[in-house]
Amino acid sequence: MTQVAIDTDILQTSLTNLTSTHGFDDSQIKTDSESLEHWGKDWTKHFAPAPCAVVFPKSTEQVQSVIKLANQHNIVVTPSGGRTGLSAGAVASNGEIVISLDKMNKIGEFYPADRMVEIEAGVITEQLQQFAEDKGLYYPVDFASAGSSQIGGNIGTNAGGIKVIRYGMTRNWVLGLTVVTGKGDILQLNRGMIKNATGYDLRHLFIGAEGTLGIVTKAQMKLERAPQDLTVMVFGMDEFEHVMNVLSAFQSQLDLTAFEFFDDVAIDKLMATGHVQEPFEARTKYYALLEFEAPYEPIMDKAMAMFEQCMENGWIVDGVMSQSLSQAAELWKLREYISETISVFTPYKNDVSVLISYVPEFIKDIEQVVNANYPDFEICWFGHIGDGNLHLNILKPENLTKDEFFEKCQSVNDLVFQTVQKYGGSVSAEHGVGMTKKPYLNYSRSETEIEYLKELKKVFDPKGIMNRGKIFD
Amino acid sequence: MTQVAIDTDILQTSLTNLTSTHGFDDSQIKTDSESLEHWGKDWTKHFAPAPCAVVFPKSTEQVQSVIKLANQHNIVVTPSGGRTGLSAGAVASNGEIVISLDKMNKIGEFYPADRMVEIEAGVITEQLQQFAEDKGLYYPVDFASAGSSQIGGNIGTNAGGIKVIRYGMTRNWVLGLTVVTGKGDILQLNRGMIKNATGYDLRHLFIGAEGTLGIVTKAQMKLERAPQDLTVMVFGMDEFEHVMNVLSAFQSQLDLTAFEFFDDVAIDKLMATGHVQEPFEARTKYYALLEFEAPYEPIMDKAMAMFEQCMENGWIVDGVMSQSLSQAAELWKLREYISETISVFTPYKNDVSVLISYVPEFIKDIEQVVNANYPDFEICWFGHIGDGNLHLNILKPENLTKDEFFEKCQSVNDLVFQTVQKYGGSVSAEHGVGMTKKPYLNYSRSETEIEYLKELKKVFDPKGIMNRGKIFD
Repeated sequence: MTQVAIDTDILQTSLTNLTSTHGFDDSQIKTDSESLEHWGKDWTKHFAPAPCAVVFPKSTEQVQSVIKLANQHNIVVTPSGGRTGLSAGAVASNGEIVISLDKMNKIGEFYPADRMVEIEAGVITEQLQQFAEDKGLYYPVDFASAGSSQIGGNIGTNAGGIKVIRYGMTRNWVLGLTVVTGKGDILQLNRGMIKNATGYDLRHLFIGAEGTLGIVTKAQMKLERAPQDLTVMVFGMDEFEHVMNVLSAFQSQLDLTAFEFFDDVAIDKLMATGHVQEPFEARTKYYALLEFEAPYEPIMDKAMAMFEQCMENGWIVDGVMSQSLSQAAELWKLREYISETISVFTPYKNDVSVLISYVPEFIKDIEQVVNANYPDFEICWFGHIGDGNLHLNILKPENLTKDEFFEKCQSVNDLVFQTVQKYGGSVSAEHGVGMTKKPYLNYSRSETEIEYLKELKKVFDPKGIMNRGKIFD
Repeated sequence: MTQVAIDTDILQTSLTNLTSTHGFDDSQIKTDSESLEHWGKDWTKHFAPAPCAVVFPKSTEQVQSVIKLANQHNIVVTPSGGRTGLSAGAVASNGEIVISLDKMNKIGEFYPADRMVEIEAGVITEQLQQFAEDKGLYYPVDFASAGSSQIGGNIGTNAGGIKVIRYGMTRNWVLGLTVVTGKGDILQLNRGMIKNATGYDLRHLFIGAEGTLGIVTKAQMKLERAPQDLTVMVFGMDEFEHVMNVLSAFQSQLDLTAFEFFDDVAIDKLMATGHVQEPFEARTKYYALLEFEAPYEPIMDKAMAMFEQCMENGWIVDGVMSQSLSQAAELWKLREYISETISVFTPYKNDVSVLISYVPEFIKDIEQVVNANYPDFEICWFGHIGDGNLHLNILKPENLTKDEFFEKCQSVNDLVFQTVQKYGGSVSAEHGVGMTKKPYLNYSRSETEIEYLKELKKVFDPKGIMNRGKIFD
């Protein structure tokens, strides 16, 4: 992509306008190279950051003033949250003005009867989780980057994570949004109501739009009853079909709050770190971690009976059940530490999803296609089987440089995404499209659909200034 | 609204084209006056039906052929499901072709691991509920018209009902949609996945669009674990604030599957029918019905303890708890029979919603404004307090004719909707906008928002043939 030359005079005039007319102070505008580097990128490292400025509005009206100036001077803006994205949705590599929500991080009014809280978009996920806990409630969307990711970014990608099987995606917890559209209009969407059948629900259009229609500045978030006596079980299994059988069996009896899986490659790398204890005497090919609330004795009895039944059926080789919250936390490490552990192997990550029913066949197909074409590649699987979301990680062989490896992986992509398409799946389950999945969007959305997406964007952002180059060109 | 004159020759040519080219047989096209009357209206009676034809496609492709012909000849089409709507969203009063989904009522493939079933849009709500039950599962969207309403219509208005507090709206249960857009394109939206972050989610745009963007022809619906040992409690209370206190108290301890309320006017009319037993010795001003799963003894103990606590606090005057499923069903009649009971009083119905926190003040305001302006009007309240949705029913005084009464109610509307606006509420919580709420849309959506809605419609339906005159002009 070629760098767009922004006229320095126009940029300077615009930034001066922000301070003279719209109440920005000097700390709210940065153009030094260190800041441009820092706020110009997210957790993807494939694109060099090259914004022209970073601004830090403190109100929806200040965001609006930036958008209006950007329209006037045809400058592209990139909304920026916690920058933990893995699809380069928040990377500004082309002379954009980055609008950081870092200074819009206040938690506002709480409505106990509605179990709802009004927040600014820059609130960190963990900050909202903590607020909920302080109120005796729970914000259930959770994932590895919760300590850095901002709610606005979560909304932009409709973030999922490890509790989706019970609580659904971020979408389920958004009762209302304040947005500034690409045209510069401020809209209050749905205003916190559970029931509101008054025309198209624009809130849901902005959720998952990756900042290409406008910027979310505030949100009304629903909270939930805190889970009670969470109990974790981990099972070792030899066949992938058995993982699915165990999922069905437990789901018929218990309301699972998580059903995660990982394979022997993951456990192998994990055990090598020495940070986590081996769960069983003998290794198995697959592992599942499931979690459920067990506030009543009969629930534990049910779980134990189901476990014994699954052992009898030959589905489970070995298993363990937490007897306390600290034991539960210890077992969770088996799943939670995987990402960090394999990061030293420079993994090529894919975040795909298919119907749960198709998962076993899909995994077989992917392994076949990768092994046939790249026999020296090691595959590590983990993911959220309970909702059909798999993280496919290809580990870099030692004999390849990073660049050689990623180049080869680009060709693996086509094979992987053809398989995703064959199963009617998604090329990005919870990470968004951004720039990294843009070339593969047509594996998950038809050409006709993509045309509609482009037309929709024009309605909200006729000049195409909002996060240009993300999702589609 | 003036009747649009459809050229008889054009209509005849179009209908002939459907049979000669698109496989329609004679039973799939009706133009007799009885059929036009029957399929031209829904449960609202304010608009005279006047379609030009009714067609009954049997496939998505046949629907597409009608839409394409309609575009070619600029004929307006009105999608028609179970026609149980209460906002005239499915009324064809202006020379439209009605596209009835009556012949697209097949239940297709079931995916046990996904708890998902593929259905045609004409499937009746009760039919889906029964299918789920046969599979040991549950379809949780439920309301009075479930025996007639079609899933396609439920999706068109994002139907809610009596279990929203636990299970959410229809939106939560739609994993995928097949639609024909107003332009005549067939789109497969989301294809049944739980996690899919690949650009704007058009599925959610079509949910609640009341057939103004296109027609839903198929849906992939999620099913849920069947509830166990549902237990019902009914309370009599003297102050509305106490209703709210009881809701908060019980919600802090139990996962409620329903929290409904009704007032003494409702119970008065209900008792006069003799069909239901008086719940308590003495009448109270307000009643609440709550429901929860109680598969374990400690849950019943918790509920009883909470009930005693609420009695001690002076919130509950009297209460009763079901000891069996048949007793639970009997108690539900207190709430379920209200609509039918008050229908003899020609009620003027409104279906509004505000934040739960605002409900007590909102009810007071509405009563004040109606009593001040129309002291001879009797108000009957009932609704889903657990989600902020209230059904306001004004009963016709005997001395007024139906026409006089409805004329007066039209002016009440302005007062009611001004109050809704004051609280940032919704003029239609779960019935949709259709034609009856169209004049009041701006009480719930800003003028700027409405402009965006109109622009969005143009993307999917540039010629404006889809259910023209509904939601907005």
